[in-house]
Amino acid sequence: MSKVTSNLTISADGYSAGLNQTEKRPFGDDGGDGWGDKLHAWYSETPEEDRAEVDRLTAKAFIMGRNMFGPVRGEWDREWNGWWGGNPPYHVPVFVLTHYPRDPQPMDGGTTFHFVTDGIGSALAQAREAAGDGDVAIHGGATTINQYLAAGLIDELRLHIVPITLGAGTRLFDGVPPLNLEQVDSQATSTVTHLTYRVLS
Amino acid sequence: MSKVTSNLTISADGYSAGLNQTEKRPFGDDGGDGWGDKLHAWYSETPEEDRAEVDRLTAKAFIMGRNMFGPVRGEWDREWNGWWGGNPPYHVPVFVLTHYPRDPQPMDGGTTFHFVTDGIGSALAQAREAAGDGDVAIHGGATTINQYLAAGLIDELRLHIVPITLGAGTRLFDGVPPLNLEQVDSQATSTVTHLTYRVLS
Repeated sequence: MSKVTSNLTISADGYSAGLNQTEKRPFGDDGGDGWGDKLHAWYSETPEEDRAEVDRLTAKAFIMGRNMFGPVRGEWDREWNGWWGGNPPYHVPVFVLTHYPRDPQPMDGGTTFHFVTDGIGSALAQAREAAGDGDVAIHGGATTINQYLAAGLIDELRLHIVPITLGAGTRLFDGVPPLNLEQVDSQATSTVTHLTYRVLS
Repeated sequence: MSKVTSNLTISADGYSAGLNQTEKRPFGDDGGDGWGDKLHAWYSETPEEDRAEVDRLTAKAFIMGRNMFGPVRGEWDREWNGWWGGNPPYHVPVFVLTHYPRDPQPMDGGTTFHFVTDGIGSALAQAREAAGDGDVAIHGGATTINQYLAAGLIDELRLHIVPITLGAGTRLFDGVPPLNLEQVDSQATSTVTHLTYRVLS
């Protein structure tokens, strides 16, 4: 059955990014230590043939917040088509939450960025329509995932817990009412623990 | 080599207890859902012969905050010898951090509660002395563990991550500067994930 999933790399204290994102530092302040790199090193260390299992980038539509899409704020007054170059790794429709209308942006490889200005429910409806029988992924960042969790719209949460703490930034579960989860999977390498939770209520 | 360890059960959002602890609710507000019970159900589900491996209650001295010791605040104006009855599960010296002096309280089974009024460094020095070649455990709650983490005094952190979120309460890592950890162990059952981190810096 089609699910709404979410897949996030977090520090041991629950942060997915530091404060003060910029174009050169998409994961924000890093205290000079490269938190973005540290958070995601586990992924580049994962053998390519195992990545599909680990990251489950198998959704047929994605939803992301504007800050995950890029550093541009306010009107779309400069060209920005995401952090991922001409051929993004999605290859399906991606719905970007924003308050500023913009025409759809087709990319190479099947990815099209659609810009949704009428809220998370509308974005999910459009993503479900695009995904057909496939899953929809609430791709991030944590602020967007928290909005969907608070609204009870995520079925499965897959966390990659990295052995650092950040102490400040964008934090998973902030502002989300208490949840009952079911731990459906837990696996580890020496550098990361992958936890999969089903969201019960 | 003798280590300073800490062992804490937390929710997926990092809380070890809710707000507003009372004698009847040592884990605080639970929204009517029994969070204390939910947080610690994994332990009663662990077969007795596996518990030593899981909880590593092998320290030769323990340190705990006053709120973990009990609900009495201010002066020791009523009798209170902990939540654990006449024969507590420690069987070694336990150092309780408090601002209010009190004579040592010997219990059955080898546990003696010592009350330390001159700070976390003093408590650790006394616990090390008592432990000899054995480990010292910073037993909790999270507020006490956070003080020791912030001071760089914990070598190993063992977390039991339970599949619920609390949304408010006493949170591990609050106020602790960013840490580099080494994930030395990660094991799971269907109801909890046990993570062991070495604290590098």
